[in-house]
Order: sequence, then structure tokens, then C-alpha cells
Amino acid sequence: MGEPKASVKLWIVGSIGIDDIKTRNADRKNLLGGSVPYSSVAASFFARTGAVGVVGDDFPTAFERRWKGFGIDLAGVQHQAGDTFRWACEYDENMIERTTLKTELGVFAAFMPELPAGYRAAPFVLLGNIQPELQMHVLKQAQGAKFIALDTMNLWIEIARPALLKVIRRVDLLTINDGEARQLTGKWNLRACAEAILKMGPRYVVIKKGEHGALLFSKTGVFIVPAYPVCKLVDPTGAGDSYAGTFMGYLARAGRVTDGVLREALVHASALASFGVEGFSLERFQKLSPAEIRSRVSELKRMMRV
Amino acid sequence: MGEPKASVKLWIVGSIGIDDIKTRNADRKNLLGGSVPYSSVAASFFARTGAVGVVGDDFPTAFERRWKGFGIDLAGVQHQAGDTFRWACEYDENMIERTTLKTELGVFAAFMPELPAGYRAAPFVLLGNIQPELQMHVLKQAQGAKFIALDTMNLWIEIARPALLKVIRRVDLLTINDGEARQLTGKWNLRACAEAILKMGPRYVVIKKGEHGALLFSKTGVFIVPAYPVCKLVDPTGAGDSYAGTFMGYLARAGRVTDGVLREALVHASALASFGVEGFSLERFQKLSPAEIRSRVSELKRMMRV
Repeated sequence: MGEPKASVKLWIVGSIGIDDIKTRNADRKNLLGGSVPYSSVAASFFARTGAVGVVGDDFPTAFERRWKGFGIDLAGVQHQAGDTFRWACEYDENMIERTTLKTELGVFAAFMPELPAGYRAAPFVLLGNIQPELQMHVLKQAQGAKFIALDTMNLWIEIARPALLKVIRRVDLLTINDGEARQLTGKWNLRACAEAILKMGPRYVVIKKGEHGALLFSKTGVFIVPAYPVCKLVDPTGAGDSYAGTFMGYLARAGRVTDGVLREALVHASALASFGVEGFSLERFQKLSPAEIRSRVSELKRMMRV
Repeated sequence: MGEPKASVKLWIVGSIGIDDIKTRNADRKNLLGGSVPYSSVAASFFARTGAVGVVGDDFPTAFERRWKGFGIDLAGVQHQAGDTFRWACEYDENMIERTTLKTELGVFAAFMPELPAGYRAAPFVLLGNIQPELQMHVLKQAQGAKFIALDTMNLWIEIARPALLKVIRRVDLLTINDGEARQLTGKWNLRACAEAILKMGPRYVVIKKGEHGALLFSKTGVFIVPAYPVCKLVDPTGAGDSYAGTFMGYLARAGRVTDGVLREALVHASALASFGVEGFSLERFQKLSPAEIRSRVSELKRMMRV
């Protein structure tokens, strides 16, 4: 999709998909989904972001236009002959548990990420949830990377642990949910999990607890960031990706990583994730203004203040 | 057990029991338990507290001595012929889910709480989790009550809803866990639950989420207080009671209820609850110092600070 025009500060690799999502109130088909659209769009509110992924020849040009509309660079998105990754799920009544109804990998099955030349100098990198071998492959091309965050999932902990541990050793921050942290470390207590993960290489670990917020651990301390209590939950899909994307976008805008910047980044991540779930796919982000973001961040900070 | 010596600022009614508790690491029998011991002991770190409940003639004098050792007034504890309430449970591997193995009400079955004359002027009241009719009965004797908090449980929501709603109408604050809030209101979203509860009468509602912390809702806003991430979880029994007791003890010490005082009270509640679960029964509280409390409160505040 062409070479980047302005230099990207952050690039993100992961899945790009077409989703069908059923909730208690709605049944929506053919939505732009996958980790990269959610995370890059959230990041784009803070920094120039590049996307790395693959789509098939069924990928609608409308999706591409919509995605580009956020100012995201799509030079890293490969077009391959075949079908785009398709995924369908149905949420339980509680809108938290979900059942996967369909996973058709399509062109994503043979995905081999390649970094556009223009991304190599980008200082911030988010390795979204794909096979650890592919994360390592693309990371090796990222000569300019200064701060690398890694997301993963239970599947890779189960079937690709050695490769995953290799990538974990190379990154600055691991973002992982509570269940996966327990699975990865064999410990139950989250502080013990974090301690074990920090020994695997990263300087930081963010343990995500969904609607209960997240915990940031480093060698020097813990930061507890609550989720913003949403009034109107439409579709939780992609919340973790919006969270990670915002977090990295905020760091990329700041251009440096300090304790204070990390904490601000996480509060912004909670705020953006809470907007994301107010609509399907990127719908809420499409009409989201910087003033709304500022207002929600202030509100969340007031909710946290002693 | 005699009339109060110094005037109590807060009194608490609820269960007093003898517990057997089994966890993955230990199997302990004949522990001082029940909501009043946990909550009054936690409160005693902040204000002169009176206990209202009933024990049988099997209640060990050692328990009474230990309890009194915290400076708690026991004038409201009735001695009845028969057995003390006995309860046994076993925790799952995760130390969160538990199975009740035994519930023998004993003298608690015919409990009719009576307020010692010396408690009637006490400004702060915590109605612990007992039958709503009994909560109402004792509340009517509390002429001096200025700020009343109410705890309840799923059982009363199921079998005594009209009586419970009557008590709820009379109190200033309802403390309830997330599942019970949903059961009481028929709503899933916690903000919607809180809104519905505030319409039932109370000015404040604290929705407890166990190891994920709690949310305080009022007409003017939300305060999110995290649980302190514990390093050493020995026995979670009574954490909710220590939480409520500390909260009310802190308010009683402050002598007034403002937004700022409420937030401080909740942070202290998280801190005390986190100490409580580091031991069985009141064991951790017996060796807890004010300096340790101050230090944990500061640590928790640092974890919350943006």
C-alpha cells in the first residue's frame, strides 16, 4: 500500500481481520477487526503510527479508506491473493465471556511480516499477538527500536513457549492478561507472576484484568490503573488492543519512558479502551474528539484521586 | 459482658462465630470468626467500637480476652445457653472460591440484638449482615445514629427482599458485592446498579469486587479504590468485614463524612483488609502496628498516583 509519507514513531504488527460479532443486542457482520486496526487507531490519537499485517483480496477498499482516515500509515500492510482472516464470536449475556464461532486464517496462515524501510528507524514498537517466531523475525528488522512492547496469548504459551521466551527476553515491556500471566509463570499471586516475568527480561510488565483494570509492575514499584466504569457497553472486542495501542502511542508522543509518563500512558489507555467498547469495530473512534479524550482522562483521574 | 467504660463512637451488629477453615496450605479449627470480630477489630485501630451479637456458653474466655485486648467494648455481646454459631469452609486452590462445609447457627438462630444504653448515642453504626428484620429492630434503638452503613448478602435479597428494602431506605450507605448488587437491582452494569441503589435511599453505595477493589458511588461521582495487591495470602475469610469495619472506624474517628474523608476511609479499608488476609482469624491484627498501617496506606497511595 505504498511507502510512508511522514516518518512513523510507532509501528504495530498483528492480525487484520473481518469480524462477525453477536451480542445480546445486536448481530453485526463484516466488521473491520483484528489487533492492528484497534491498536493502531487508538495509537493514532497520539502519534504517527504504522501498521504491519496482511489482508486478502476480499479486503474492502472502504476498510482501507476508513483506516487511513485516522492518519495511519499502511505501508506495512501486505496484500496477498486469498481471503482475509475471518473471525466470528458471540458474547454471553454478561458481555464478558464469549464463544468463538469461526476462525478462518486465510492469508494470515502464511503471514511473514516485512518491515517497510521507513519503519526501521521508528523508536517504538508494539509486537501484537502473533506467532512468537514471526514477532522475532520482524523485530530483527527493527534496527531503530528503542522501546519494544509485546502482547501474546494462551495459545503461544501452550504451543510455542521456547520461542515466546526468546522474544520476551528481547522486549522492554510485556502486556499480558491475568490468566495468561498465571499460565506463563505457574504462579497464582499476581505480584509473584510479575516478579517471575521481570526475571525473564522485560523491565516492565502490564497485567491486564479486563473490566477490573490493570497493574504495571517494574523493579521499583507497582501502579494500579482502574478501568473506566463504562455506562454503555456495546462491544468489548478489541479493548485490550486499544489499550495497548494507546499506551504505546502515548509513549511515542512523549518520546521518553519515565514512571510518570508510563502512568499517564496507562490512564489514557483506560480512557481510550472505554470509548472503543461503546461501539462496534472502530465506530466510536471515528467520531471521537481530542476534547472527549481529555475530558474522560480528567474524569478517570478524579475517580482515582485520594 | 458489662456496661461500656468509655463512650463508643461506632457500634457494629452481626455474627460471632467459631470457624474451621481449610486452605491449600493449612487446616485450622476453632478460630474466632464471624462478621463482628473481624469488623470491630479493624475498626478499633481508628475509633472506640462496640460489638453487638450473641455467643453460646461454649465461647472460649480466651476469645473474649483476645477480642477485648483490642479495646473493643463487648457490652452488646449477649451470652446465651447453647452453642455458638459454627461455620466451616474450604478454599479452592485459587484461594477465592470456597465451599461451605458446615453452618450450625446455634444461639445465633434466635438472636435478638439489644443495644446497651451506652451505645444509643453513638453517631456511627454498621449493620452487619444479619436478617433485615433484626437490623431494623436494633436500628430503632439507635437514637443518636448520624451515619448508618448496611451490609447484606444474597440470602436476604432472595428470601427477605421487602424487609431488606425497608432497611436500605433508612441507611446512609450500603456496602454490597458486585454479584449481590446485580441480584438486588436486576442490572448488570455496575454504574446502573449503583444508580438504582441510590434511588432506594442511601446517599452512598460501596460496590465491593474482592481482590479487584471497590467502587464508591454517590450522586456526585465515583471513587475507584483498588485492593492492595497482597504478597502473602493466608486466609481471605473476613476481608469484606475488615474492609467495612475499617471504613466505618475511619469515619468515626474523623467524626464527619465528606468526599475526602470517604476516599481516605476506603484506602485505609483496603490496607487493613490486606493485612487481615495475611493470617487466620485475627492473628495478623494482633501484631499490627499503627506504623505498619501508615506505611501500607502510603504505599497504596503511591500505587494509585498518576
